[in-house]
Amino acid sequence: MTRTPLVDVACSIARATDLFGDAWTALIMRDVLAGVTRFDDLARDLGISRKTLAAKLARLLDEDVLTRETYQQRPAREHYVATEKGKELYPVLLALMNWGDRWYAGEAGPPARVHHLDCRSDTVPVTTCGNCGEALTSDNTTQLPGPGGRIGPGTQVLGPLIASRAGARSDE
Amino acid sequence: MTRTPLVDVACSIARATDLFGDAWTALIMRDVLAGVTRFDDLARDLGISRKTLAAKLARLLDEDVLTRETYQQRPAREHYVATEKGKELYPVLLALMNWGDRWYAGEAGPPARVHHLDCRSDTVPVTTCGNCGEALTSDNTTQLPGPGGRIGPGTQVLGPLIASRAGARSDE
Repeated sequence: MTRTPLVDVACSIARATDLFGDAWTALIMRDVLAGVTRFDDLARDLGISRKTLAAKLARLLDEDVLTRETYQQRPAREHYVATEKGKELYPVLLALMNWGDRWYAGEAGPPARVHHLDCRSDTVPVTTCGNCGEALTSDNTTQLPGPGGRIGPGTQVLGPLIASRAGARSDE
Repeated sequence: MTRTPLVDVACSIARATDLFGDAWTALIMRDVLAGVTRFDDLARDLGISRKTLAAKLARLLDEDVLTRETYQQRPAREHYVATEKGKELYPVLLALMNWGDRWYAGEAGPPARVHHLDCRSDTVPVTTCGNCGEALTSDNTTQLPGPGGRIGPGTQVLGPLIASRAGARSDE
């Protein structure tokens, strides 16, 4: 009964979740970025049907998030590699993982640790302001209209709300 | 044809996306955190059926991501407010938004800007290491086993791969 097509919403969250807001797609990207890159390994790791996996991989190839590369010549074998666009999904994965660790790990503790190779420490990701480096929160930020903003399905109420803030701050 | 239940996967990304890896749930959280908090406003903003919206809100209340608060006494009126757990989803939204801005905004440009109130600038979120402050990428990090790690559906191949790295680095 959902009526609005996600791709038609003038919102980058809607556009991103149209592709990435699918749990198995998130786990495919987790796997590929962590080094599980072959079709058979992905199918076995995730425990999903080959048909489901093939459909999701096809979409990721289509969207240029993954690409296929030959890793062996005889016999010819291909695996899946993240493109630049795919690698840039990593912050989304880190944010999801961090939130899952915080709220669902329970007494067993987090299933995995993220190790930052450069500073050689187990790390907790922090989403910070690209200008000042401070952690960004829903309380210390506000949404303002952007050039591609549009009031329509998916932004019918939010659009005017954000638009009403225009001019309130215009330092950039 | 998907066989593995997401909640059974020993992976915080799986646990997080089980709830949040649903496009409309992401947009509901976007709206609530941006100030669109009433049922009627959410239904109108998103253009989804009241039945779909009610089901998704019920799940978010159930998971303690949202709570209901009275904002008016006569007549009694309630709206939806993010809990601490809900507010902590904000980095996920920022990461999705940033990725959508980067890859799907096109010529029209980003639909919205994120304004950081503290440093008074339009900001681009950066996911950084909580220890050293450097930006985290899939290339400068690696996953290591955590206390709650388990090899099973959803981690059948990834689990052993990560486990094989144990001991390689043990500074923390």
